[in-house]
This record gives sequence, C-alpha cells and structure tokens, in this order.
Amino acid sequence: MGGDRAPQIVVDGAALARERYPELRYLMFGDKKQLTPLLDAHPELVEITTIHHTDSVILNEDKPSTALRSGRDSSMRLAINAVREGQAAAVVSAGNTGALMGMAKFVLKTLPGIARPAIAGIIPTARGETAMLDLGANVQCDAENLVQFAVMGEVFARTVLDLQRPSIGLLNIGVEDMKGVEAVREAATILRETTLPIVFKGFIEGNDITAGTVDVVVTDGFTGNVALKTAEGTASLYANFLREAFKSSWMSKLGYLLAKNSMQTLRTRFDPRRYNGAMLLGLNGIVVKSHGGTDEVGFSNAIGVAVEMTQHGFIEKMTDDFNSLQTDLNPQKEVAGQ
Amino acid sequence: MGGDRAPQIVVDGAALARERYPELRYLMFGDKKQLTPLLDAHPELVEITTIHHTDSVILNEDKPSTALRSGRDSSMRLAINAVREGQAAAVVSAGNTGALMGMAKFVLKTLPGIARPAIAGIIPTARGETAMLDLGANVQCDAENLVQFAVMGEVFARTVLDLQRPSIGLLNIGVEDMKGVEAVREAATILRETTLPIVFKGFIEGNDITAGTVDVVVTDGFTGNVALKTAEGTASLYANFLREAFKSSWMSKLGYLLAKNSMQTLRTRFDPRRYNGAMLLGLNGIVVKSHGGTDEVGFSNAIGVAVEMTQHGFIEKMTDDFNSLQTDLNPQKEVAGQ
Repeated sequence: MGGDRAPQIVVDGAALARERYPELRYLMFGDKKQLTPLLDAHPELVEITTIHHTDSVILNEDKPSTALRSGRDSSMRLAINAVREGQAAAVVSAGNTGALMGMAKFVLKTLPGIARPAIAGIIPTARGETAMLDLGANVQCDAENLVQFAVMGEVFARTVLDLQRPSIGLLNIGVEDMKGVEAVREAATILRETTLPIVFKGFIEGNDITAGTVDVVVTDGFTGNVALKTAEGTASLYANFLREAFKSSWMSKLGYLLAKNSMQTLRTRFDPRRYNGAMLLGLNGIVVKSHGGTDEVGFSNAIGVAVEMTQHGFIEKMTDDFNSLQTDLNPQKEVAGQ
Repeated sequence: MGGDRAPQIVVDGAALARERYPELRYLMFGDKKQLTPLLDAHPELVEITTIHHTDSVILNEDKPSTALRSGRDSSMRLAINAVREGQAAAVVSAGNTGALMGMAKFVLKTLPGIARPAIAGIIPTARGETAMLDLGANVQCDAENLVQFAVMGEVFARTVLDLQRPSIGLLNIGVEDMKGVEAVREAATILRETTLPIVFKGFIEGNDITAGTVDVVVTDGFTGNVALKTAEGTASLYANFLREAFKSSWMSKLGYLLAKNSMQTLRTRFDPRRYNGAMLLGLNGIVVKSHGGTDEVGFSNAIGVAVEMTQHGFIEKMTDDFNSLQTDLNPQKEVAGQ
C-alpha cells in the first residue's frame, strides 16, 4: 500500500516481474477492496497470489517510532512478519523507508555480528555497475560500522552483481592515508589488516563512484545519501541541458531525429527505474525498498532484486562471512581489552 | 610555480585575464629563469608584471605543516606575504591546497568572528549558478562553523554571483526538521532565529544542488568535497555515454554532425574551466585556488574570480556582516552562559 501510486503499480509490477521469474508467488498485504479488481486485470496473477486484508497503512509522514508502536496491523508490518514466519522469502515495499527499516529491524533482527543494518543501492558507472552503502540508514558511523558495511556490500556484490571477487573502496576526500575523518581512517586500517578474503582498494573519492573504480563503495549514511542524490541530480541536469541543446536549432532538431535510437539507449542507461530497489542489508531476512515515486517497471525491478538475493542465498552467505569476520576481529579486540 | 603545467599556464592565463581586465597588474613569484622567457612571449605583460625570484617551491605532496615550517621562502608563501603587506590585492595559486590554506591562515589570519576558513566553489545548475562551501577545508564541522559558512557564502554570492538577496540552504538527507546530524539541525535553528538579513531556505538534499534550489549550499568539508566530485564524475560519465551513443551508428554519427554546434554549447555549460577558481573564504585577504590540472583558460578564470572579489569589496562586506553576526549571536550566548 506504500508509494505514490499504490497499490496499482505494485500489482502491475508484480505481473511484470512474474514474466521474468515464472516461479514467483505473491502474498499481498493491504486493502482487499482495492487489490481484488487490480489483480483481476492480471488473470495469471490471481492463482499465485494470496491477499491478506488489512485496513491499516503506514503513511509516508509517520515517524518510525509511531509506525512501530501503532502499526502492528499495518500492511507493512504484516508483510515483514510473513518473512519472519517463513511464509515469504522476501518483502518488497514502496512505502516509508524509516518505518520499513525500524519495523524490519524490530521484527527480523540483525544478523549475528552486525550492529546496524544499512541501505545499499546499485548505480551505473563507466565500467558497469557499482553497489554503494549506506544510503541513509545511519547518519553517523564509527569504524566498526563501516567495516561491517564493507563485508555486507561485498556479499551483496557477489550475489546480486554476480561478481567473483568484488573490490571495495572507502569513500573519502583524498587517497592519502592521513585524509578524512577518523572513523574512515580507522576502518581502512582494519580492512587492510583483515585476513578475510576481501579485495580492499583503500580510499576513493566522489568522482570514483561513477568511474567504477571499485565494485562496492562504502560510506556513512549521510555522505552516501548526499552522493547518490547529487549524482541523480547531475544526471538529470545533463539530460535537461541535452534536451535544450537538441531543441536549440533546426539543424540540431534534425540531428536528434537521426540519433534518436542512440539517444533512447543513452536514456535507458541512466533510467532510475533500472536501478530501483534499495536493499536493507544486515537483517535476518530480505527486505527491498522500492522508490515511492516509481512506476510498474521500477517496482518489478525491485521485486527482481529480492528474487536474485533469495536465489543466490544472500542471507546464508552473509551469515558465513560475519562468522569469519567475528573470528578475524575478536583476537584484536581481546588484545585491545587487556 | 604550482599545478601540473606551471609556470606556463600561469603566465598564459595571466595574459588572457589581462584582456578581460585591462587594469590588472601582476606580481609573479617563482623561478626567474623559467618566467622571463614565458613573459617575453607576451610583450603586453612585461611592463605590468614584476617578477620576484625564488628557488623554493611547495610541492604537491608536501604536508601543510612541512610547508609552514620550511616553506618560508617558497613562491607560495611570498605571494601570500605580498597580500598581507598590501602589495597585492589578491593571491591566485594552482599549487597544493592544504599548504595554501595552512600558510594563508597563518599569514593573513581569519577575519574577526570566523573560527575556520572554508573553501567555496561555483557550480552550474538548472537555474544558473550556485555557490557551495565547504569543499574540503574542514572535514568535521560544528553548528557554529556551518552558520559562519552560511554568512560567508551569502557575502560571496552577493559579490561574485552578483545576487541581491541570495538564498541559503543547508545540505541534509531530508527536508524534515528531525533529519540529519546534530550539527546540521542546530545550525538550522540558529539560522532560522537570526535577525541577520539572510534568506535561509532550510534543508536541501543532494539533488537540489544542481537543481539550483538555493544560491548557496552550506555543508561540512567532507560532504561538500564528496558531493562536488560526485557531480563532476557524473557529468563526465554522462558526457562519455553521450559520445558513445553518437558513435554507435552511422545515423547517429550524421546526427552528431548536424547537432555539432549545439553539442559544443552543451560542453561549454559543463566545462570545468568555466568554474575554475575555488575561494578560501574567511581569511583577511583574498586567496583563490586554481585547479592544479587546469589550462590557461581555467587559470585566467581563477584570476577573474580574484578580480571580482577585489572590485566588489569582498573583505569589507565580510567584515561588516561578521560584526552584525557577532552582535546577533552574542546575546544568545550570554543567555546560554547564565
């Protein structure tokens, strides 16, 4: 029931995702009166979908604390409960991000060894695609959080981006050792010294994100959120200027007509719907957040991310890696505690 | 002597700037043997330029502390000294940013009421141009620093962007009051309550930077540096994808030929040389930092920024505004101290 045009785009997106993943089955939580006619428009969905009716909905303006306290029967909460009960393999929502994170953390708990979950996303780069986290769940992070994000991001890149040995970079304002805030420098020291099989490339800068210098960009939620939105804003500015340029003369209008197909390919490369589906990593369950303003194509991609994570055993891989990380970090801690 | 192709691009840039500002005169600090033949190629420069010879140069890899200690006869230090002595109205350098900031702060001191200088830059937006600070001088900032950056940025936008009543926004990860880190929220409270004639628009997000939502974007040096470089990286990625799109078929190649002029205009809109010249604000003297990798066109623009700041009485306006800010903030402080 969450997002700007719910539940229409949710149901239509579910139908689109089903075409790509024929094994999909859905539990839909929300207002049966709204959902039934929408489902009826997709006969192929009807038999693979179970509607769980509830009147209660988390609103976009609800605080996470309010959602937790008074949203026990909300569609969002019931959907998360279904993951905890093993009825669903993953939950996908276009609703309130803070509420989704708060409730998912409360209901599903974090995986052993993870202090704080993070939000991860995928962005287009000159060399393909790069994962970035945290995109806004934790505005302030210490070194340990960042190290955990690095491990979470590494597993994510292996499972969703299908990379064998993804490289990790810590976002900073220079590549020299002495640069940046203390948490980032300390995290770099830990990642350099770890015996985990992680390809740590050290510090990267803002321009390295879209250059694709690394497969996983690790940063705190404040910087990550600003960087992601700055990149989106810049791409959109460039697209606007390009449109104006093509409209600026008869010659360039004609030029556009000739280059139209290529320009559509270009647009597709930056289409935010392709990169829809931010992952709430670190939880004991798969939770994918769709952009609230997306359409059915975008929502179907968010479902696709949930499917990929499920099929590639994301939670199991995370659990294994955090067990190793614990073993790797604990001796250090014992020394430090003496 | 600083930057990738110094002193060639410095001298050539000085000649270009002189065409735009015929009243310009130069003091050049550096190796006379290198400078003399370069100057001779621009006869119009010879009579308006005084060369101050020195062998000592600050290197890019020098730490600010090293530069301060052992760079007393360096070209950078002597140029800054000339501003303190009133021999020069402003200093422009393409050298080591950290050293320039460290030495300028030591030699020129900050203006009364300013705890820390900041680096400001200008970026292209959908609505024209926006100033942003801090771009990397202060990795961690408290609320008071951010408030001072807001006032500094406001004066900068009035003098260099020639705006009557520039609007100010604080970079955050949401527009709601409760969002973000404490320093940012606290700075917002102070800016909302101040009686200074400042147009404070509250919080903005990353995508607002290039949207031109405000005339001055205020943030800490870590976030600002990452955001600026992310924007540069994204624009460059888009430009690469556009180039590939035009090359992808015969039709689109022909389309490019027809749209060529418009595409050149587009390139100019994002040309980093146009926006070259970051300002070290808050010092008792005008200090402009050129990008080290720029060419003579870029360097001449950095000189242009220094000229604009000088001609519009930037230091005087800053001094006035910080006097008012002190009067405005001090009563609050007294109450808080009781």
